[in-house]
Amino acid sequence: MRVGFYQFRPLFGKPAQNGKKIMTALENVDADLVVLPELALSGYYLKDKAEAIKYAEDPENSNLIDSLSNLANKRNMRLVFGFAEKSARQCFNSAALIGPNGIEHIYRKAHLFNEEKNCFDPGDTPFIVNDIKGVKIGIMICFDWVFPEVARALALQGAQIICQPANLVLSFCQQTMLSRCIENSVFAITANRYGADKRPQGILKFTGKSQIVAPGGKLLHRAAAQRDALFIAEIEPKAANNKMMTQYNDVLADRRPELYKSLIYK
Amino acid sequence: MRVGFYQFRPLFGKPAQNGKKIMTALENVDADLVVLPELALSGYYLKDKAEAIKYAEDPENSNLIDSLSNLANKRNMRLVFGFAEKSARQCFNSAALIGPNGIEHIYRKAHLFNEEKNCFDPGDTPFIVNDIKGVKIGIMICFDWVFPEVARALALQGAQIICQPANLVLSFCQQTMLSRCIENSVFAITANRYGADKRPQGILKFTGKSQIVAPGGKLLHRAAAQRDALFIAEIEPKAANNKMMTQYNDVLADRRPELYKSLIYK
Repeated sequence: MRVGFYQFRPLFGKPAQNGKKIMTALENVDADLVVLPELALSGYYLKDKAEAIKYAEDPENSNLIDSLSNLANKRNMRLVFGFAEKSARQCFNSAALIGPNGIEHIYRKAHLFNEEKNCFDPGDTPFIVNDIKGVKIGIMICFDWVFPEVARALALQGAQIICQPANLVLSFCQQTMLSRCIENSVFAITANRYGADKRPQGILKFTGKSQIVAPGGKLLHRAAAQRDALFIAEIEPKAANNKMMTQYNDVLADRRPELYKSLIYK
Repeated sequence: MRVGFYQFRPLFGKPAQNGKKIMTALENVDADLVVLPELALSGYYLKDKAEAIKYAEDPENSNLIDSLSNLANKRNMRLVFGFAEKSARQCFNSAALIGPNGIEHIYRKAHLFNEEKNCFDPGDTPFIVNDIKGVKIGIMICFDWVFPEVARALALQGAQIICQPANLVLSFCQQTMLSRCIENSVFAITANRYGADKRPQGILKFTGKSQIVAPGGKLLHRAAAQRDALFIAEIEPKAANNKMMTQYNDVLADRRPELYKSLIYK
């Protein structure tokens, strides 16, 4: 399976230009699955919910998402990309999985980062996996990395590959995703952006270094910090089916959920 | 608060000698809390349950543990150390917290590593915290590091310092404990052993590099791989009360337990 990421620098408030940038970058790509950054169409540093809605897409009625679907159809591939999702009066920081026949799943970010709380509603979608060509993929977005429950829930659902659109400003995520891939024995593709969003309320700089990690925490590839990067690797998703860390230890079956109840109840 | 670890090389099957080694190393220590390795009295590479029981201590009736209690009393400190715990017909890979008045808590390892499954019963104690001089400490043992649920459960109980007796043979734990301290904003003291256990069934080499990590994943100190190391640092446990990763993000309060139910139920 050929999987990878496209790291780029979205322009704030320029969805059409950002969409065109993606279309051009991927028009000849040979891949089964490409992950793009969080909020890849709108840019990141929104100031409030009104502005988020202004730059959001309604997935039922979005020329941009239709264009990406057409690209996925033409290349016979899947894309996972972040976008501001308009839904009635709500607005979510979402990621869509789209394939040759359109949208297959939308995940709404469960753990909002910092001032995102002023712009988006908290995600209300469960952590589920989607089957693409027999391979199970799960989606998390950026700051979800801090919460080990997310990758764990996806792995328990059978995720072999975790796709993580990101707009990272902190420096800890890339290293921590290695831990996630050790503790769950999964692949993880982190597609980060780079550059900066300069807005009246401040400036945010993004850290790039998109990466692909294999089960066991093996870093297969990490991109440069501040450069466009389209990277596709051939992986064997079945490697994520082997949960044995030793001949006696299955990292999922060895769990002791009867001792974990405090994770759910107070 | 003065906390730290004593990294050494227990001799297999020589509880008295190992006890003496610990007593001598700590007889003049100035500390509030010292963490020792897993199975610090018996040595590690037991071949079966009969042998585990042979080298195990019954905490109600153990001269060695009484001696360690006396030491804790004399120095007015707490010790957390791993030992094989005999309890009726069962045997656990346990860690005791002892203070000036004796045993305050025993934690029985929940996640057994590799051939430990032939030697010990799975732990049956909940993840709880103990109050020492107003500071809340939690205990995990070695391979528990793979399961993010453990540090999470302890942090949710209010643990400010996680004490981890360890006999590590894999190389991932030390780095992953940084992630645990980021995602939970706690201190962690990993007391590992070094050297090797050569037994008829094989040889196991241990990786040393005991460490203290601060909230945010800051490595305060890491010992050498193959050397005795008594290290004590002054820390401010209240730093672990601050769970704010940004002005909007509390790493515990931001959790979404209603989305985590699959961690407990199938």
